[in-house]
Amino acid sequence: MTPDQIFIAAAISSWQQVVTRVGALCLSLNEEQLSVEVAPGKNRILYLWGHLTAIHDGMFSVLRLGERLHPELDAIFIRQPDRSIPLPTSAEIAESWDAIHTALLSRFTTLGPHQWLERHGNVSAEEFEQNSTRNRLAVLLGRTNHASYHFGQMMLAKLKTP
Amino acid sequence: MTPDQIFIAAAISSWQQVVTRVGALCLSLNEEQLSVEVAPGKNRILYLWGHLTAIHDGMFSVLRLGERLHPELDAIFIRQPDRSIPLPTSAEIAESWDAIHTALLSRFTTLGPHQWLERHGNVSAEEFEQNSTRNRLAVLLGRTNHASYHFGQMMLAKLKTP
Repeated sequence: MTPDQIFIAAAISSWQQVVTRVGALCLSLNEEQLSVEVAPGKNRILYLWGHLTAIHDGMFSVLRLGERLHPELDAIFIRQPDRSIPLPTSAEIAESWDAIHTALLSRFTTLGPHQWLERHGNVSAEEFEQNSTRNRLAVLLGRTNHASYHFGQMMLAKLKTP
Repeated sequence: MTPDQIFIAAAISSWQQVVTRVGALCLSLNEEQLSVEVAPGKNRILYLWGHLTAIHDGMFSVLRLGERLHPELDAIFIRQPDRSIPLPTSAEIAESWDAIHTALLSRFTTLGPHQWLERHGNVSAEEFEQNSTRNRLAVLLGRTNHASYHFGQMMLAKLKTP
């Protein structure tokens, strides 16, 4: 591998590590355990799992990697806080989670190093010319941190599971 | 900047973003607020702040960037759980936090892209030959995720601050 390729592989590996941990945690919990709140009156683990699923599904658009698989998740897990509307079942979230991450990883590997430094989909070509740090790689690193952030909260909630 | 340099700059920027958020949060809290637990009977915010300070101080060694500034923190914040021994004051942690991150950032910028792909300090030259992903960059990405993980927990605890 060239140094460029090693850099990208490290970023994808870091992403994959967090995604694997979140998936393994959530799949190990039953419905009752997934209903435990991360703090009194706050998000349930199931909601956070759906939230990460929706945000990661949005990466197809932000990374300009094709059509999203589950745009319907945004209305439930991004635009509304927990307890506003009924959530999908954990089996449904698990299925979306798996499909989205399998597809994302496979598309990630189609991007060459220089494509990771191209603009992301939320920035115009003009804006990108002013600020080249708004690239796909920055999105990947940012979403990895975001997932770690919520994973830390899920792990706390797990301590309270029956 | 060359692509190599942009990759590294993105990773450092991601690190710096999390470090800045943790520092801003902790500096905004008073002693009473820093004593709020992230979960009943679990770590206090102040402990987590010290824990991240100790882990990040350890990065001087792991990244082979010279002497650590505060090796004494490990006994308090890594080898012992919260409430085992009295903690330093928040002013002391704030001072260490600041000194460590200023020095780390300045040393990060002395490393060229290919140096980020050299082995980290916890792996032998022989082991690294078998597995070249155990490089400095992987440590930086891993520590960034680790900080995000605890930052998510601190933000939950902040909801409970008086």
